[in-house]
Amino acid sequence: MQRILSTELPAHVGERVRVAGWIHRRRLLKSVAFLILRDGAGLAQVVLTADDVRARLDELTEETVVEVVATVIGNPAAPASVELIDPEVRLLGAVAVPPAFDLYRPVLTATLPTQLDHAAVALRHPTRAAALRISAAAVAGFRATLDAARFVEVHTPKIVGSATESGANVFALDYFGRPAYLAQSPQFYKQLMVGVFERVYEVGPVFRAEPHDTVRHLAQYTSLDVEFGFVADHRDVMALLRDVLAGMVSAVASRAGDAMATPGAGLPDVPAEIPALQFTEALAVAGAPADEPDLAPAHERAVGEWARREHGSDFVFVTGYPMAKRPFYTHPDPARPAYSNGFDLLFRGVELVTGGQRLHRHADYLAALAARGEPVEPYAAYLDAFRHGMPPHGGFAIGLERFVARLTGAANVREVTAFPRDLHRLTP
Amino acid sequence: MQRILSTELPAHVGERVRVAGWIHRRRLLKSVAFLILRDGAGLAQVVLTADDVRARLDELTEETVVEVVATVIGNPAAPASVELIDPEVRLLGAVAVPPAFDLYRPVLTATLPTQLDHAAVALRHPTRAAALRISAAAVAGFRATLDAARFVEVHTPKIVGSATESGANVFALDYFGRPAYLAQSPQFYKQLMVGVFERVYEVGPVFRAEPHDTVRHLAQYTSLDVEFGFVADHRDVMALLRDVLAGMVSAVASRAGDAMATPGAGLPDVPAEIPALQFTEALAVAGAPADEPDLAPAHERAVGEWARREHGSDFVFVTGYPMAKRPFYTHPDPARPAYSNGFDLLFRGVELVTGGQRLHRHADYLAALAARGEPVEPYAAYLDAFRHGMPPHGGFAIGLERFVARLTGAANVREVTAFPRDLHRLTP
Repeated sequence: MQRILSTELPAHVGERVRVAGWIHRRRLLKSVAFLILRDGAGLAQVVLTADDVRARLDELTEETVVEVVATVIGNPAAPASVELIDPEVRLLGAVAVPPAFDLYRPVLTATLPTQLDHAAVALRHPTRAAALRISAAAVAGFRATLDAARFVEVHTPKIVGSATESGANVFALDYFGRPAYLAQSPQFYKQLMVGVFERVYEVGPVFRAEPHDTVRHLAQYTSLDVEFGFVADHRDVMALLRDVLAGMVSAVASRAGDAMATPGAGLPDVPAEIPALQFTEALAVAGAPADEPDLAPAHERAVGEWARREHGSDFVFVTGYPMAKRPFYTHPDPARPAYSNGFDLLFRGVELVTGGQRLHRHADYLAALAARGEPVEPYAAYLDAFRHGMPPHGGFAIGLERFVARLTGAANVREVTAFPRDLHRLTP
Repeated sequence: MQRILSTELPAHVGERVRVAGWIHRRRLLKSVAFLILRDGAGLAQVVLTADDVRARLDELTEETVVEVVATVIGNPAAPASVELIDPEVRLLGAVAVPPAFDLYRPVLTATLPTQLDHAAVALRHPTRAAALRISAAAVAGFRATLDAARFVEVHTPKIVGSATESGANVFALDYFGRPAYLAQSPQFYKQLMVGVFERVYEVGPVFRAEPHDTVRHLAQYTSLDVEFGFVADHRDVMALLRDVLAGMVSAVASRAGDAMATPGAGLPDVPAEIPALQFTEALAVAGAPADEPDLAPAHERAVGEWARREHGSDFVFVTGYPMAKRPFYTHPDPARPAYSNGFDLLFRGVELVTGGQRLHRHADYLAALAARGEPVEPYAAYLDAFRHGMPPHGGFAIGLERFVARLTGAANVREVTAFPRDLHRLTP
C-alpha cells in the first residue's frame, strides 16, 4: 500500500490508507485518545480506541515518527473534515528526549536564542518552516522571471585571492598555505560574465565578517544577484528589478500561499512603476539636513512611510546617491558627476536591494581607483576583462533573508534563516 | 528603436533594425568588408560598403562592443540566411588590447592554463560558453524534477564549527577569532532538514582542500544535493536519482540543445531502470580481485563498458559498497551488515553520484562512531536532531561539473567551470 499525504485523505474516505509522519500532539480523553500526525503536507487526526494501541501512548511521545495504516472517515470537526480510525501504528523513529519546547503550540514560546540553539527541532514548528517555504518560493520566482528573459545562471568562486570589496569585513582563510578570502559578493564575477552571456544571475551564499550584532545582518546570507548588459542607464536596471520583484511575489502567492497565512505576514502589491525619489529629495522627505551624505535607518523608514502614504506602495527607489558613498565601480550620473547612477530599493522602510549602472570602460576604472587613492594591483584580474570590450551594464543584489523577513513580519532575519551564522553563532 | 537579437533578424527582412554585440570577426575583401557580430543569442553578418564606415575598421577590432542600426536583407550564404546592410555603427565599448588568443576560430587553440588565466575572455568562445549553458540547463532540470515531487529548496551554512566529514581536506578559516572550516558538503544539514520538510534539495558550492592535481577534482565545485525521508531503503533513493537524471537530460535537450551541438558532446538516454551491480559483482566484471575494498578508476571504466555493452546504458549503479569504505552515517545492509545500503552511480565510466540510505536512529549513530573509534563531541549539534524523531531517509549528491564534462566530452572539469579553484589557481 502506497503512502499518501495528509492533504490527500479527503479523496480516500471509506478506504484503508497508509500515512506517515511525526506525532505532533497527543490528546488523551476518558474513552478515546487522538494522535495528531504531522507530515510534509499538513496535519491528520488519528483516533485510538483499541486498548492495545492506547497502551502504547507513553511510547508515542511528541515528535516520534510513525507509520499509520487506518481507515478514513468523515468528521467535520477534524482537520480537513476527515479522521483516521482503526489504526495500526508502526514505530519508524523513536524520540530519546522531549524537545526543549513544545512544537504543537500555535506560537513557539522559546526565546530566539533557544530556538537557534535547537534549530533542527525549532524549524519543525509550522511558523518557522513557513518562512523557509516562502524563501524557496521567492527564489523560484526570481529564477523563473530571469529565465524567461533569457538570463543564464552562473556559479562563481566563493574563495578569492584579494579582499577587494571592503577589506574590513572579510573572512580570511588558509588556501593551500596562501592567504585567501571568502567572497563578499559575486559582483566582479557577474560583471565579467556579462561579457560572455550579456545577462546572468546567481543565487548563492555571500560572506560578511560583520562585527556588529544587529537584527538585519548575518555573517552568511543568500544573495540573489543579477547583472546584464546593453542598458541605457540605471533606469533599465530598475525596470528589470521591478519585474523580478513582481515575479517573486507572484511565486510566493502561488507556491507558498498557505505559508503566508500566518499572523503578521502579508504580500505586497508591486506597482507597475515603483515610486522613486532622488537622494536629495529623499533627504527632504525624511526631514534630514540637505548635506547628509547617506540615509540613516530612520530616514529610510520615513521614506518608506512617504511611499506608503503618497503612492500606496510598499516599495520605493532612492536614486542618485552621492558617488562618495558608492563603490568605485559605480557609474556616475553624466549630468551630475558627484552623484551616481546607483539606487537602493526600500521595502517597507528597510533597504532590500542595492543596484545601479556600473563603469564599463577600462580607462574609467583606472581613473576611479586613482581618484580614491586605491591601488590597481588587487583588482588586476578583474579589470583585465574591461580591456577586451564590455557593454554598458548594470545589476542588483537582493538579500533573500531580508526579503522574507519583511514578507513574514519577522523582526530578526535569524527567524527566517535555517542555521544563521553571526558574530556569536557557529553551530548548529 | 528597440534592440533585437541576431536570431530575430529573419523575421525582420526589409526593415531597419537595431542590433548590438561584440565584433566576433572582421573579414576584409577588396570592395567590401564584413563584420560578424556576436550577441547573447548568436551571430549576424554586417556588410560594410560605404567608405566612411570601412575607414573605421582599424578601430573596430575583434571584441569591440558596438551597436548597429541597419537594414535586413536575405542572403542564403550568410548566417540564418540574412545580413545587415547600410549600417550605422556606434561604439559602445572599446578594446584596449587584443585577446591573448583568437575567439573566432572554431576551436580555442590556447592551452587550458592560458584559457584559465584569461577566463573572462576565453569563456566568450562559443564552445566554452556552451558548457556553461548546458550547466545552467542541467540545474534547471534538477530543480524542476524535484519541485514537482514537492521537495523544498534549502540554503545551509558553508562555514562550520568542526572539520567533521574528512579532517584532512578541509579549509580552515578565522571566524571572529575562532577556528572554523568551509563545509565539504551540506550532508548533515540536509539530513536535519528532512526532519522539517521530509524532502529537501540544495544547489551550492562545496569546498575540498584537495591536495592532488587531477582532471576531475576542484577545490570548489557545485554540488546538487538531495535528501528525503520515509524511504524503504537505498533503492527508493536510486529510483528518485534515475528520475532526476532524466529530468536533467531532458532539460539540457530542451533548453540548451544548440549548446550540445559541438563535437564530442552527446546526450545519454536514461533507461527506465538503470542497470545495477552489487559491489562484489562489479569487482568480478572489472576483473579485480574479490577482496579489493574499493573500485579503482580503471575498474569503474570497465564497469561502465559492461553497462554499455550488456545494457546499452551510459549509466550504471554499483550498490552494496563495504561499510568500511563509506562514511559513518551510512546505513548497513540489514542482511549483510559488512556491506552498505550505499551506492555510486557511474556515468560513462566515471563516478558521478554518491548516495544511499543513512542511519536514522540516535543509538545507531553513537554505535557507528564508537565502532570507528571516533569521538561524539564534534558531531554533537548534528546528532542532537536524531534524538528527536527522524524517519528512515537517504539521498545523494551530484557533482555538476563532472556531469557537464561527461556530457560535453571535456577531458578536464576545468573546461566546464567558469573560474576554477584548485591547488594552484586562486585567480581570476
